[in-house]
Amino acid sequence: MKLNCDMGESFGPWPMGNDETVMPHLDMANIACGFHASDPVTMDKTVKLALQHNVEIGAHPGYPDLVGFGRRSMKCSSEEIKKIVIYQTGALQAFCQANGTRLTYVKPHGMLNNDMMRNDDLIQTIMQAIADYDPKLKLMIVTTPRFKEHTKMAEEIGVELLYEAFADRLYDYDGQLTPRSIENAVHNDPDLITQQVDNMINGFVVNRGGEKMDIHADSICIHGDNPASIQAAPLINQLLHRT
Amino acid sequence: MKLNCDMGESFGPWPMGNDETVMPHLDMANIACGFHASDPVTMDKTVKLALQHNVEIGAHPGYPDLVGFGRRSMKCSSEEIKKIVIYQTGALQAFCQANGTRLTYVKPHGMLNNDMMRNDDLIQTIMQAIADYDPKLKLMIVTTPRFKEHTKMAEEIGVELLYEAFADRLYDYDGQLTPRSIENAVHNDPDLITQQVDNMINGFVVNRGGEKMDIHADSICIHGDNPASIQAAPLINQLLHRT
Amino acid sequence: MKLNCDMGESFGPWPMGNDETVMPHLDMANIACGFHASDPVTMDKTVKLALQHNVEIGAHPGYPDLVGFGRRSMKCSSEEIKKIVIYQTGALQAFCQANGTRLTYVKPHGMLNNDMMRNDDLIQTIMQAIADYDPKLKLMIVTTPRFKEHTKMAEEIGVELLYEAFADRLYDYDGQLTPRSIENAVHNDPDLITQQVDNMINGFVVNRGGEKMDIHADSICIHGDNPASIQAAPLINQLLHRT
Amino acid sequence: MKLNCDMGESFGPWPMGNDETVMPHLDMANIACGFHASDPVTMDKTVKLALQHNVEIGAHPGYPDLVGFGRRSMKCSSEEIKKIVIYQTGALQAFCQANGTRLTYVKPHGMLNNDMMRNDDLIQTIMQAIADYDPKLKLMIVTTPRFKEHTKMAEEIGVELLYEAFADRLYDYDGQLTPRSIENAVHNDPDLITQQVDNMINGFVVNRGGEKMDIHADSICIHGDNPASIQAAPLINQLLHRT
Repeated sequence: MKLNCDMGESFGPWPMGNDETVMPHLDMANIACGFHASDPVTMDKTVKLALQHNVEIGAHPGYPDLVGFGRRSMKCSSEEIKKIVIYQTGALQAFCQANGTRLTYVKPHGMLNNDMMRNDDLIQTIMQAIADYDPKLKLMIVTTPRFKEHTKMAEEIGVELLYEAFADRLYDYDGQLTPRSIENAVHNDPDLITQQVDNMINGFVVNRGGEKMDIHADSICIHGDNPASIQAAPLINQLLHRT
Repeated sequence: MKLNCDMGESFGPWPMGNDETVMPHLDMANIACGFHASDPVTMDKTVKLALQHNVEIGAHPGYPDLVGFGRRSMKCSSEEIKKIVIYQTGALQAFCQANGTRLTYVKPHGMLNNDMMRNDDLIQTIMQAIADYDPKLKLMIVTTPRFKEHTKMAEEIGVELLYEAFADRLYDYDGQLTPRSIENAVHNDPDLITQQVDNMINGFVVNRGGEKMDIHADSICIHGDNPASIQAAPLINQLLHRT
Repeated sequence: MKLNCDMGESFGPWPMGNDETVMPHLDMANIACGFHASDPVTMDKTVKLALQHNVEIGAHPGYPDLVGFGRRSMKCSSEEIKKIVIYQTGALQAFCQANGTRLTYVKPHGMLNNDMMRNDDLIQTIMQAIADYDPKLKLMIVTTPRFKEHTKMAEEIGVELLYEAFADRLYDYDGQLTPRSIENAVHNDPDLITQQVDNMINGFVVNRGGEKMDIHADSICIHGDNPASIQAAPLINQLLHRT
Repeated sequence: MKLNCDMGESFGPWPMGNDETVMPHLDMANIACGFHASDPVTMDKTVKLALQHNVEIGAHPGYPDLVGFGRRSMKCSSEEIKKIVIYQTGALQAFCQANGTRLTYVKPHGMLNNDMMRNDDLIQTIMQAIADYDPKLKLMIVTTPRFKEHTKMAEEIGVELLYEAFADRLYDYDGQLTPRSIENAVHNDPDLITQQVDNMINGFVVNRGGEKMDIHADSICIHGDNPASIQAAPLINQLLHRT
């Protein structure tokens, strides 16, 4: 299992995140592509940072909403979604190519990701965009109890999936993430985060009700804006690569 | 010699140009990439239109100034110029790839083009951007009496040039374009435009002073917003391909 | 009753609409404010055109989505909605003031208007924004069978409403507009449009079922992108001002 | 003499500056208006913060270049400059009005300010924009040895000027600011900054050559991104208001 984190979310003169600190511990960097965050100079710099630490690069396309950081749902047509995914992925691919590497996957950002996980038409649209552009790219989605349905959709469209689980989020009774409005939805203790990763390596999570539930994940996500996660990153990295 | 024209300069709900009318007569389409004009949906549509008429596709990157249509000079750093050229070119490349084709060249738009022709540092920065991204892409620049110097610069950087001449612009005494502020700087008569192309095929232009001057061009540009040029396009196409 | 139309929806080099033709026939111009369309130069020019024809000026704020022309729903917070309405209205007010006039009303654009008519929280948020900024400005909303409820909401918040009805749209059985997906939802015949205005002057519309229904309107809207409406504009103007 | 500082330069999810810390010590807040920084929510919040500390509010309009933070020169026409100044000033005025206060001045931002100080046409264009919009607003410009010429220009156009001097910048032999490329151009010592303000209160600065030079200033500017200036702010405030 690999560790992923959103990277390269600065914009022009405005820094965001702790890329220099976090990147060395990652296996996969989801790099913003200029629609919800980032800009051409930041993208190139972030690709170089990933390369320097031998980190796989994924495109992290979002809704075209910079001021809202791609966190506001926008009712785009399927046509629009496909083209904004291809545009952003291609722009990042160019920086990879200019630096002698290649993208390996695409992970939608923020509300585009949330909307995709709730809407089968939307997730299929995004699968189709990737299949149209470059079927060698994988699509990273959130692992849920519906993961086998998602695998089937992807196979029909001709794209491969990566499933991600969250190291620093409490899983709910139903295997979904506990909404952030509920207490303890986010783990703020590095030990708890590391423990959850250890569980995930063993194929389960302990949910909100204290029950073990199976989980199917290829990659573990940490949130770069959670200090406990940043603190846990080196330990998570060790856990993942000891296995 | 090949005929080129700027294409795909609509933006969202705002149409621009006569792409459907002009495209069938072109050999090369300079397609806008979203910074001075166009958007992901328009880019994909324009790539498909070019493909349908078997027209070569070039990226047409501009300054990041949509409201100013890339026609206002912006003092960007070399770093910024390189990255905005790579970003835009990569985004268009993605639509080419999604449609089973590839870019063959890059032609900077508007004031970025003008600034590049006046500033050796800037033109070398753009050459370097292309060499970094994909040295198989050619850079299209305006042919001037300095074209041999430009060829030498390009060779040193490792990128190939295409020189373009203008079918519908009066050439000045010095082989530069007559400024638009001067009367008759733009040809508004389709016969005059066609005649100028015929001259260019034979390696010369008749300048503002009525003198023949040698001209070195690989491609002829017409302006899609000049009705006389649009009218002349089929004839120019015949002239170019009879040869 | 007064005739209103959306005006000033060009953007940078991209023209839209027939402002020069339509403005002379209007009583009220809903002028775009730069978020879904327009730019500072266009706004000033449109204010001057309205003044020249003695037309009342209203702000026409939209979602911050230029490429989508404000026609895609965006899940903004109440806070965001309030501030984007105030920002846009203030920007247009500045051009009014620079030209010696003042705004008299606000009419939300496109999907912000549609969303507001479906969502009582949103319409109250917009009412509150106007009351906060300048309670002398009126809010123009679509007249519906719920108009008395809307009047009550507005009174509680301290803003005055203007109700608009549509000259060129077929009214449905329930007094709402017939969805555009249904045949004949838009009137394309200038006589039919003029007849509907005549009915509205007399307090009713003939709906999709051929029945007369009461309608309560202060202003009649025509769509500048409907050629039949543009053709009908002078006649509508005469009808309205004969009364 | 009054203390001013640029405020409200966050954008969407990206914070910038130390507004909460600095605002209590200011007399005048130059608030960004959304073109080079800020957004409607941030503008309202910053106006409220200024009001809370009884700080005068000025509009701080910039070039329409968010990613470049208004620090890249853009060749805009006079028409464009006028309208972008009016647009931004009006938008901020609206938040003042919604909060029960009013703007008192305008101070152009970044490269628009630099360009204005080097180009008499541009400074007169900006003066005219303010005179057109609201001649009760003052224009804040940098004090230079040419200040009397600037006063004359402003009188002819009908706008009043405020001259600002910089607490944390070394003045050059000619009374201009020492370029940042030269060592010690920026004061990094709070004592030195406070001393320079004390000198300014007494009508002079000690320049790069160690000579006293007269200086004519109505307001002292500190840079919010200079930690020494932030540290000095309370002392500067005391110095200014003891006088």
